[in-house]
Amino acid sequence: MADFHSIGIDTLGSETPTSEIIQGALEFARTRPGCRLTFVGREDELQCTREFGHKVVVCQDSVTLYESLVSVLRRKRNSSMKVGLQLLANGEIDGLVSTGDTAALMALSRQAIPMVPSFDRPAIIKRFDGKQRPFWMLDLGANIARKVNWLIQFARMGSTYATAIGPIQQPRVSLLNIGSEARKGPQILRDTASELSKTSSINFVGFIEADRLFDGASDVVVTDGFSGNVALKSIEGATRIAHHIIDQELHSSGLNESEIAISVAKDVREKLNAQAYNGASLIGLNGVVVKSHGRTDRIGIGAALQLAQDEIQARVPGHLKSHQ
Amino acid sequence: MADFHSIGIDTLGSETPTSEIIQGALEFARTRPGCRLTFVGREDELQCTREFGHKVVVCQDSVTLYESLVSVLRRKRNSSMKVGLQLLANGEIDGLVSTGDTAALMALSRQAIPMVPSFDRPAIIKRFDGKQRPFWMLDLGANIARKVNWLIQFARMGSTYATAIGPIQQPRVSLLNIGSEARKGPQILRDTASELSKTSSINFVGFIEADRLFDGASDVVVTDGFSGNVALKSIEGATRIAHHIIDQELHSSGLNESEIAISVAKDVREKLNAQAYNGASLIGLNGVVVKSHGRTDRIGIGAALQLAQDEIQARVPGHLKSHQ
Repeated sequence: MADFHSIGIDTLGSETPTSEIIQGALEFARTRPGCRLTFVGREDELQCTREFGHKVVVCQDSVTLYESLVSVLRRKRNSSMKVGLQLLANGEIDGLVSTGDTAALMALSRQAIPMVPSFDRPAIIKRFDGKQRPFWMLDLGANIARKVNWLIQFARMGSTYATAIGPIQQPRVSLLNIGSEARKGPQILRDTASELSKTSSINFVGFIEADRLFDGASDVVVTDGFSGNVALKSIEGATRIAHHIIDQELHSSGLNESEIAISVAKDVREKLNAQAYNGASLIGLNGVVVKSHGRTDRIGIGAALQLAQDEIQARVPGHLKSHQ
Repeated sequence: MADFHSIGIDTLGSETPTSEIIQGALEFARTRPGCRLTFVGREDELQCTREFGHKVVVCQDSVTLYESLVSVLRRKRNSSMKVGLQLLANGEIDGLVSTGDTAALMALSRQAIPMVPSFDRPAIIKRFDGKQRPFWMLDLGANIARKVNWLIQFARMGSTYATAIGPIQQPRVSLLNIGSEARKGPQILRDTASELSKTSSINFVGFIEADRLFDGASDVVVTDGFSGNVALKSIEGATRIAHHIIDQELHSSGLNESEIAISVAKDVREKLNAQAYNGASLIGLNGVVVKSHGRTDRIGIGAALQLAQDEIQARVPGHLKSHQ
């Protein structure tokens, strides 16, 4: 599997145009001879991919944005997301990338793909690039309910993931809180911290505040899905306002006429974007499922495919099963 | 009071050097002839301010960082923060600026200053600069417990504040959530949204996601103290990593030798910093209390004093009392 593998791509149901998804995927596959793609979507849109030797699974229906979960689960018997997950469940692909709605992907994944035993629910995990080194944060929005036991499961998932994907030996695991001292924050976080301190398989280093995320003090940041999603989206919002300010200042200074300044601004933009818009993964499932950002471009699609390939090659679900 | 007023400054107990606090305050007062400052702190450090006609209240003790609240409330009978709040309670100053610990400032404020009737607890509110217009978010960390009634009080406080300070007519009030559709998020937010929709004095416009904060869809964003603090600090963290990336790219491109590029980078830095490091206010108290960022500089101190002056001149506590 490490040498030859197949990744499925759900091409429908996002704000990213299908043509951009296809372009990003073909560019990715061009330099990865061991990777074969399976496109799931409309015949007319995917026709162009056949000549490159990729597979097409035709499917007209999509999970539309803002559709209710009840409708997603019951009515859409043949949405591209559902078909893609079924291919994964049947072993016809080794991993799936979707740009569709996160809640729908979470719900349909749980229906189609079994959980790794001893984990109750999938979490969403994503890599961020800190000043000196990367870190991973989970859960970023798959769950809302707050239970000590779930946070501990997220810590175990995250620690195993960083070990496999980093690869990082004994990743330092922290809990996102609004203070770094042990007495700070809500009771559930203090209870979770106390449990994690006693768990020998986890290298728990305490609480972390969101302004310190990028400083390198922790490799895995555990949070409930609500706060994690707020953190993720705040970083996105701040990134966008940073772009806006840079563009404004370049313009008013006249530096937007300078080739070198434009090139620097472009590099800054790409590095900032990677923080916010790269792919995230559903973890805890017995299968590789990557969620690309819904408003991404061909570069974002390439990054999501790379992430799926990395997880397939690192055998993430296998590691979760064996580190119990 | 609008023409002549006095602002107190707690000069001890933060990571900002007292000399920097004094410098920022003197620079602020130089161009505001109607404003007299009262410095609270150590005699030797504050001696230099007397020649400018400002008042000094001598006080050796400070609330130190990471001190427990029990110790702050019981042991420190004469900390600069406590003395400053007492001056405010006695009407000797019209507002107080502190760079000290937020939790201590919250606890001591509640001890010294009465609440505006009908509000249970103070919240922390701060202005952010969106792409086209400012917005205010509260609570940013004064509270943790999640109650519908408190969130509704925050909405009323925030709406009144934006009306007085903006000034904005009928500010659009939203709730921070992890989805914008009515069915998204935890029950408490859906219950609060339902209540706010029925409250005619509040112009409630629904849920907002953190990545849309800066887009101008809402003037007042209401959140519980935990999520609000995560959002605030994530924005700080993202701002710092943006600085880091800009510096790195300038350096590797050689543009750090260009005067104009340095000046643009400086402007970008200042605008980004204003997002994260400006002052925040305790709201709901019958008095003006502004918390400057703990790691600020003379510019940050000036911004915090300006905020205190704006709140004094807009009579924020008076408006909270009359809009009930």
